[in-house]
Amino acid sequence: MGTDADRQGVKPPANAAAAAPRGAAPTDGERHGDLARPAPLRLRSVRIDTWGENVAFLSRSCTAYRAEGFKALSKVEVRQRDRNGDAPILAVLNIVDDPSIVGDDELGLAEQAFEQLGLPEGACIELSHAQRPVSMEAVRRKILGERLDLAAMRSITTDIASNRYSRTEIAAFLVACSQNELERDEILALTRAMVETGERLDWHEPLVADKHCIGGIPGNRTSMLVVPIVAAHGMLIPKTSSRAITSPAGTADTMEVLARVELAPQRLRELVTRERGCLAWGGTARLAPVDDILISVERPLGIDSIGQMVASILAKKLAAGSTHLLIDIPVGPSAKVRTMREAQTLRKTFEFVGRALGMHLDVVITDGSQPVGRGIGPVLEARDVMAVLRNQPDAPADLRAKSIRLAGRVLEFDPDVRGGDGESLARDILESGRALAKLESIVDAQGRQPSPPALAPHRCDIVAPVGGRIHGIDNLRLARAARYAGAPISPGAGLDLLHKIGDTVAAGEPLYRLYAGYPAEFDFARRWCEEDCGYLIGAGT
Amino acid sequence: MGTDADRQGVKPPANAAAAAPRGAAPTDGERHGDLARPAPLRLRSVRIDTWGENVAFLSRSCTAYRAEGFKALSKVEVRQRDRNGDAPILAVLNIVDDPSIVGDDELGLAEQAFEQLGLPEGACIELSHAQRPVSMEAVRRKILGERLDLAAMRSITTDIASNRYSRTEIAAFLVACSQNELERDEILALTRAMVETGERLDWHEPLVADKHCIGGIPGNRTSMLVVPIVAAHGMLIPKTSSRAITSPAGTADTMEVLARVELAPQRLRELVTRERGCLAWGGTARLAPVDDILISVERPLGIDSIGQMVASILAKKLAAGSTHLLIDIPVGPSAKVRTMREAQTLRKTFEFVGRALGMHLDVVITDGSQPVGRGIGPVLEARDVMAVLRNQPDAPADLRAKSIRLAGRVLEFDPDVRGGDGESLARDILESGRALAKLESIVDAQGRQPSPPALAPHRCDIVAPVGGRIHGIDNLRLARAARYAGAPISPGAGLDLLHKIGDTVAAGEPLYRLYAGYPAEFDFARRWCEEDCGYLIGAGT
Repeated sequence: MGTDADRQGVKPPANAAAAAPRGAAPTDGERHGDLARPAPLRLRSVRIDTWGENVAFLSRSCTAYRAEGFKALSKVEVRQRDRNGDAPILAVLNIVDDPSIVGDDELGLAEQAFEQLGLPEGACIELSHAQRPVSMEAVRRKILGERLDLAAMRSITTDIASNRYSRTEIAAFLVACSQNELERDEILALTRAMVETGERLDWHEPLVADKHCIGGIPGNRTSMLVVPIVAAHGMLIPKTSSRAITSPAGTADTMEVLARVELAPQRLRELVTRERGCLAWGGTARLAPVDDILISVERPLGIDSIGQMVASILAKKLAAGSTHLLIDIPVGPSAKVRTMREAQTLRKTFEFVGRALGMHLDVVITDGSQPVGRGIGPVLEARDVMAVLRNQPDAPADLRAKSIRLAGRVLEFDPDVRGGDGESLARDILESGRALAKLESIVDAQGRQPSPPALAPHRCDIVAPVGGRIHGIDNLRLARAARYAGAPISPGAGLDLLHKIGDTVAAGEPLYRLYAGYPAEFDFARRWCEEDCGYLIGAGT
Repeated sequence: MGTDADRQGVKPPANAAAAAPRGAAPTDGERHGDLARPAPLRLRSVRIDTWGENVAFLSRSCTAYRAEGFKALSKVEVRQRDRNGDAPILAVLNIVDDPSIVGDDELGLAEQAFEQLGLPEGACIELSHAQRPVSMEAVRRKILGERLDLAAMRSITTDIASNRYSRTEIAAFLVACSQNELERDEILALTRAMVETGERLDWHEPLVADKHCIGGIPGNRTSMLVVPIVAAHGMLIPKTSSRAITSPAGTADTMEVLARVELAPQRLRELVTRERGCLAWGGTARLAPVDDILISVERPLGIDSIGQMVASILAKKLAAGSTHLLIDIPVGPSAKVRTMREAQTLRKTFEFVGRALGMHLDVVITDGSQPVGRGIGPVLEARDVMAVLRNQPDAPADLRAKSIRLAGRVLEFDPDVRGGDGESLARDILESGRALAKLESIVDAQGRQPSPPALAPHRCDIVAPVGGRIHGIDNLRLARAARYAGAPISPGAGLDLLHKIGDTVAAGEPLYRLYAGYPAEFDFARRWCEEDCGYLIGAGT
């Protein structure tokens, strides 16, 4: 008594037969109790991709269930008829008015839900009203400003991993965590809970190195230099990366210009053992899969959360088996982190959570005031990387210097490398050509691209609207331009920067060249750049 | 320069031809610029109800657009080909793997989006990447803890009203408003902004009375008594109500047992002029439609927000043309408002916003410790209402007393009724039979139900597990039980309470009778009641 059913998300008794009929006396009406149940529905696959959310489709004229109050956006429990024991799935109901999608005696399931239920088309299905997932109570407490502990975070990630959350419920969780920023204990709990939802790699070595940049700086392809330098030294660095989500290129997209990046887990393991490093896409292993679902809702919303970011990065790295991790936090006026103070706070958060997870973390704060290197977009960035590895005189100096610095810090994870010696060791490995040889070897091991993609065909120069010294470059505006131009889907699309901060340009002089794969994208990106080229010229001091 | 494109939601230039080609110099690549655009897509209606969200369907193998990076959950702008001038719609993209839903040269739009675009099937359509709605910047500021002003609230409600928000974006707004509770200035701004998105009724009378209960108390059907009493006095009280969303019966559901409630606006106006009152469903007029969209996302999430509630209620009433409004705030351990202190705060908020909107508000705080009346569910509640109107000796005393009290307060809006005289005036109107005559007259005017629904066939008694005095009744648990039993979709379903707080019962004595329309619901609701009957018996003092 006195419980708040709404808030508790109380489940109905699991089994009617097992529930003793205490407190119930039959009346005349009860003889109706053996009237027929609603007729079963036949399962049908509806081939719509509803990634991250289970969706079910019911005909508006389905008399059996509509009469019982199932309506659009209702959450329903779907199970095989007469198989109460099997795990039901939760889905959001869509109402359909077209019998060619679902008939009146059918229940349609979108691709993900159909796969999760794991029954053939035509199977006998029944529906019931679903309770809100129990862990939404924890989300509600978070909204009210309470702290969540490991058990609460675990209940949330478990429900998300089993597709019990609708996208709006996931959004509620994300905003709740963003608004009353997570305490570091909560970030730790969320990280642990996310790792538990997936696989965890074990490399059976005491030192497994990795590096990660929090992102936001176009062209910043240091991983493709750090990995071959570190692996050439003999240190294990099995780097898995994501593809770009909102940026014009991720490390996986750029590496894919040169080699295959989607590798089966067993193949990846063999090649890492042999090469000591890799540059692969991380999506093939089921590492912290809840993170991917959260990101799919978070990115379109455009909300940022320090806590989510730290948990996301560390969960993926812990699941990938990393023991020693270098984190790069670029700071600049158009970077993700805009002040040194914010960067220091973020660094402490990484260090706290990393230590509690038993990881050895080194956090470096770097210059994020402009793009690194010249190219933005997979093909252009791969070109820059190869120029550095080949020690070409025209190789971008900033990409080279930053990569040597970061590789040096990773090398110092090696107990045999003296503090301060890492950077010169990294430079030696690069200048000697050993890093180039290692990358070529990794490319061959992963599978060299037989015909690497070319630069995109639609091109124009974006010129300086006024003359003067370049005082600033807007990372976000240029990233967006490259994205509009088609990167990374068109790997040859993007921007090639001809000038950086500190250069002096004349009015009408080209600042960068735009490459696009398709006319519509070319027009759109060019207009975007012409409206505001993203360079601050002449003004300021 | 230095702008954060992501945060500003900058729009691309509206018209390529109009944008002067400043800052662009053609290069060799540009001759490709006249390559064909992606072929147009043919518009197709996909008859899926995606209420509150525009959804578009694109084939996974649609080469024209997939190559340009459109993927699941992308937000796209959809417009008629070569008609840049016409307003495009925004939609969330779903990817389809079934050519019978959409072919490779088609773009499908779900029902609402299809209707909004307003073009016939087969029309030539083109797509572009959509910017996030500009007003999401205001949502982001709210997440960061800032206050939103009228302009910000207006930008949000305008975007929501034109279906530019996805459901996850709406969820983000709701959680942001819930977590850092809205200031009363913000509630006022939200209320005004919501009213502006829809129609506004004008009754051309100086005193248009209304009453509203914040809800949460089962059986609390006072409106069906207050309206006939007040209208019998001659005061204008055009009451429009919602149907139940999460409760077992709304006033519209209960009135529908007796009469039609879905009335065309013109017909409603005529009958109100003649009868001085009505009890109609509010959904036919487009009153603050954004409120309906917000509720459709908020209720499944189960998040509460004082600010949203106040704005929702007052926006609907202001749009409905009310000048004088009585608000009922029930307080009790399982009511929406649990303490007198919370109730007083809520009352002040209502008073502040109401005054600023130029409404005359009277807020009463009532006993919400248990259901009002005996029946819970449309047929059972209508029975209680009629018993009071007919002055039957067995009529529920609490429903009668509360209705007289509330009607009295409304009557005192009349300048000719002396303060304190309202209640006895209301009692006179009820006891004289004038209220009954007025309700019958309204029922006839709205359209009497030729065959009112009967009580549901599946019945059992829920008995006291122990003997003793009844100290408490859980509103939420009983509401949920009636809902599980099928109310309000099955109007004859629900609960009939045989005992209330203060009664003494023996173990095994029936507490209430459960009525359900269908066997599955009967079983489910009975198990729910047997697990916990919702009565606190014997314990306490």
